[in-house]
Amino acid sequence: MVMELRVTLIGCGTVGQGLLEILRDRGNEVDRRTGVRIRIVGVADMKMGSAESPGGLEPAQLLAAARTGSFAGLPGAERRRDALGLIREVDADAMAEATFTNLETGEPALSHVRAALTLGRSVVTTNKGPAALALGELRALAARNRAAFLFEGTVMSGTPVIGLVEHSLAGDRIQELRGILNGTTNFILTKMEAGGSYGEALAEAQRLGYAEANPAGDVEGHDAQGKVIILAAALMETNLTAAQVPCEGITRITPDAIARARAEGKRYKLVGVVRRTGNGVEASVGPQALPLDDPLAGISGVMNAINFRTDLLGSLTVVGPGAGRVETGFALLADLIEVGRRLAR
Amino acid sequence: MVMELRVTLIGCGTVGQGLLEILRDRGNEVDRRTGVRIRIVGVADMKMGSAESPGGLEPAQLLAAARTGSFAGLPGAERRRDALGLIREVDADAMAEATFTNLETGEPALSHVRAALTLGRSVVTTNKGPAALALGELRALAARNRAAFLFEGTVMSGTPVIGLVEHSLAGDRIQELRGILNGTTNFILTKMEAGGSYGEALAEAQRLGYAEANPAGDVEGHDAQGKVIILAAALMETNLTAAQVPCEGITRITPDAIARARAEGKRYKLVGVVRRTGNGVEASVGPQALPLDDPLAGISGVMNAINFRTDLLGSLTVVGPGAGRVETGFALLADLIEVGRRLAR
Repeated sequence: MVMELRVTLIGCGTVGQGLLEILRDRGNEVDRRTGVRIRIVGVADMKMGSAESPGGLEPAQLLAAARTGSFAGLPGAERRRDALGLIREVDADAMAEATFTNLETGEPALSHVRAALTLGRSVVTTNKGPAALALGELRALAARNRAAFLFEGTVMSGTPVIGLVEHSLAGDRIQELRGILNGTTNFILTKMEAGGSYGEALAEAQRLGYAEANPAGDVEGHDAQGKVIILAAALMETNLTAAQVPCEGITRITPDAIARARAEGKRYKLVGVVRRTGNGVEASVGPQALPLDDPLAGISGVMNAINFRTDLLGSLTVVGPGAGRVETGFALLADLIEVGRRLAR
Repeated sequence: MVMELRVTLIGCGTVGQGLLEILRDRGNEVDRRTGVRIRIVGVADMKMGSAESPGGLEPAQLLAAARTGSFAGLPGAERRRDALGLIREVDADAMAEATFTNLETGEPALSHVRAALTLGRSVVTTNKGPAALALGELRALAARNRAAFLFEGTVMSGTPVIGLVEHSLAGDRIQELRGILNGTTNFILTKMEAGGSYGEALAEAQRLGYAEANPAGDVEGHDAQGKVIILAAALMETNLTAAQVPCEGITRITPDAIARARAEGKRYKLVGVVRRTGNGVEASVGPQALPLDDPLAGISGVMNAINFRTDLLGSLTVVGPGAGRVETGFALLADLIEVGRRLAR
C-alpha cells in the first residue's frame, strides 16, 4: 500500500535540484521501500518562476527547465505565482523549503514556513534560518495545526542527527554534544595539517567549490554557530540567540599553531559545543586542539561529525557528509518520508 | 498524555537488571520525555523463579530480589511459572526477552518469542539467537498478529543501528556495511597494538570482565558472525546461515603481524562485512589490516562501530558502546518506547 504525498517545492537551486534528481532516478524504488510516493504538485523559485499541476510535475521535466533557468513552458507556469502565492493556492500535504539561508532575519523562508504551517501543511526544510531563529514558535505552530516541522538537513545535510535522537535516543538524556559542523573549515584545517598556509588551503577549497567567493560565513564560524543554536533548541530544549553563543572561526590559526599542536599529539578542529550546566545550557563555537584519540580528531576533509555524551549510552558518535547536492536533497527526502508515514497512520 | 505499556520480562540476568535499573532510576523522566510508561507486570527467570502483578512490580523490589537470587516473597511468586507459562498466562502488551544467546538452536528464546508473537504481544530482545536464526519467520509472524518484533540490542547494545536505518535511511540503499561488532576482540587487538601478546591481552580482558572464562565465542568470531547474519537479514533482506558466512577470529594474529601492519601504516581489526554483489549479498567475518584513515581504524578498546556505504549519503559511520549492563538494558528500553509509540497511534 502506497500513500501519496503532495508536495510543493520552494526554491529550486542546488538542494531542490538534488531532491528532484533523487525522485527522477529512484522515485519508484523509494515508493516500494518506504510506502510513500512523493508527487511534486507545485514549484516556485525566485529566479525561475513557478509551475504547478494537481496530477504532479515530472522531476525530469523540472530539472531540464531548471537548467535553462526558467520554468516557462511547464504546466501552470503562466500563473507566475510567487512562493507565498503558491503555498497558499496550490493544495498540498507538505512544503519543502530549500531557499537560501539568512541567519539574520530568516527571511523569506520564515514567512514561507509560517504560511504553510498555518494552513496545516507539514514543512521540511534544509534552510537554517527558520530553525535557528524560531524553532520553538514553529514547533508550536505545527502542533496547533496538526502538521510536522522537520529540519534534519539543517545540521549535517542527510546525515541523521535530529531523527536519530528523536527516534533512537528518546529514553536517554544528552549531557553534551560536540560537533564538526562545517565541512569547508574542516577541509581547510585538514589541508593546513598536511602543510599548507591558510590562504593556500582556502584557495583550494574555493577551487573545489567547497568555499564561496566570500567565505566569511564559513571561516568565521557563523554557519557552525547557526547549527549549534538549532541543536540546542531541537535536542536540549533551549532557545539561544547568536549573542548567547560565543563564536570564533579559524582565520587566526597559523601553521605555527598547528605545528605546535602536532608536537603535543593534538590536531586543530573547529568545534561546536552544546552542554548542560548546573543552570541551563551553554553553547559555543571555536577552534580546539583535540588529542588524537578524541572521536572528532580523525574526521578529515569535508566530513562532519557529532559526538554525544549521554547518561545511558555514554559516548556515541555519528560521522557522515555535511554537504553536497544529493546528500542534502536526501535530507528533504528523508523528512518527507517521515511526514508521509505520520499521515498514513 | 502517557500511554502505559504492560511488559513481561523473561530472563533477569545482567541485561534484564540493566533495564530494571534504568526504570528504577529514571522511569519518571522516561514517561515525561517519551509519553510511554513501562509497567513490568511479570518476570520469569530460570534460576530465580517468577513474580507477577497486574498493577505492576516495582523495579527496585525486583532488583533487590535478584540480588538474593530468588523472587520468592514477591507478588505472585508462589505461582512459580516458567517463562512460557508466564508469557501465556500474564496479560501484557509486550515481552522483553533477555535470556542467554544460543546461536545453534536459538532456544529457549526462540520458543518464547514465537509464543508471545502468536498471542499478538510485541517482542523486544537483546538475544541474538532468534534474530540470527529466524528473522524472516518472526517478522512475518509479528505482522500476521499485528505485533512488533524489535531487536536493536542484538547488534551494538544500545547504539542505534537497526532503528537508524529504518527511520533515517529508509529512502537510501545500503551497498555495503563493515563493522567492528565485538568489543572483546577489539579490546584485545587494541592492547596488542600497544605491545602485548595475545595471551596477555586476553588475560587482561578476562580480568576486566570483558572476556568470559571460555572466550571462544568472541575470539573465534562467532559473536560477530551472528551479528553479521542479523544485519544482512534486517538491513539487506537476505537470510544467510552460519555456513554461508566465512568466519575467522583473531587467535592467529601474532605481535609480528601487528608490527608488520604498523610499518605499513595499517592496524588490525576484526571486521564483519555485508555487501551487495551482482548476484545477491555476501558476508564474512575476519581480521583485516586497515589503513589508518579508514573510519574503523580509530575505534579502540571495547567500542563498536559500523560504516555504511550507501547510494545517496556515501559514507556514514556510527560509533558507540557494543556491550554493558546499562547500555544493553537501554536497547530494550528504546525498543519498548518504539512499541509504545506504535500502539499509541
